[in-house]
Amino acid sequence: MSRNDPIAALIDLMARLPGLGPRSARRVVLHLIRKRGALLQPLADAMQAVARSARECLNCGNVGTSDICEICESEARATGLLCVVEDVADLWAMERSGVFRGRYHVLGGTLSALDGVGPDDLRIPQLKSRLASEGITEVILALNATIDGQTTAHYIADELGGAVSVTSLAQGVPIGGELDYLDDGTITAALNARKAF
Amino acid sequence: MSRNDPIAALIDLMARLPGLGPRSARRVVLHLIRKRGALLQPLADAMQAVARSARECLNCGNVGTSDICEICESEARATGLLCVVEDVADLWAMERSGVFRGRYHVLGGTLSALDGVGPDDLRIPQLKSRLASEGITEVILALNATIDGQTTAHYIADELGGAVSVTSLAQGVPIGGELDYLDDGTITAALNARKAF
Repeated sequence: MSRNDPIAALIDLMARLPGLGPRSARRVVLHLIRKRGALLQPLADAMQAVARSARECLNCGNVGTSDICEICESEARATGLLCVVEDVADLWAMERSGVFRGRYHVLGGTLSALDGVGPDDLRIPQLKSRLASEGITEVILALNATIDGQTTAHYIADELGGAVSVTSLAQGVPIGGELDYLDDGTITAALNARKAF
Repeated sequence: MSRNDPIAALIDLMARLPGLGPRSARRVVLHLIRKRGALLQPLADAMQAVARSARECLNCGNVGTSDICEICESEARATGLLCVVEDVADLWAMERSGVFRGRYHVLGGTLSALDGVGPDDLRIPQLKSRLASEGITEVILALNATIDGQTTAHYIADELGGAVSVTSLAQGVPIGGELDYLDDGTITAALNARKAF
């Protein structure tokens, strides 16, 4: 296999995907070559289509194929609820649960002094301007339960002040969770937030 | 994300690659969308190029971009040595070591009574016809050290009879291997094949 070979070039590119290395990239490419018609060609076409059409929603930061995403376009989702998430993967996770019918705001990361990420890097100004223009009554902070996520949540709650009701996802024992496998922090949070049975 | 969305279609296709599932496919696709220019477009182009040009070598079964692969084309590799491997990944592994300068023959699998794989499914007839046409003096069986691989090796050795010298890769302790981590079979093989120091 010489290095100017298109197969070698494809392996090099595949090895740059998250979660893949040189070995798994070779395995994937061999699989693709074996299934040229059924998988490689459709995948090449799908990538071409996404490369041509994918863009970030100018309003919320979701990815989609138009300047304003389907969720921001939908009048049915103008419920006055706005769910703030760190990134698009979190938005997709919320959408899979199917329980939230409002709109989203994707921050694009978390505040981080170490990495030099400040409020203006995180679409926080856009978040503030949406409160009035979309008649938001409640902002739900659905940030990850990590140090950075919670720091960002506190910052946003402070910034929005009394202008709007700010809530966050409940913390506690996950459904199907076994106490023996949970960390101390989760058990502490669940105990502190205990409720009448 | 509606299901006729090109992004959802790309995620579905990516999730069918070996080693990827729905979660890692979503992660890869988000990464690709963030790096549209630097990664997604080049990857789409590389896949298109491979889909258009990749084919199996008619002589040895290697994959490449022409009907006869570079190794079979090269006169320098007509050394009279023929290395028999199970599949193209094994051929690439041999080539990475850089130590073998002969030609290859890719079987495309191993004999398996359970899966109904017989000699005619494995390019064994083509192997026999190459012995004379390419003046092969030694066939090196570089099959995996699994039950199926070794069964196939014995079958091929029997078939080629006295027509040509048949050898196989040495078995023993891998370089860098620690005895405490090796299985009993490897230690037994290494002990039986011990050599003067």
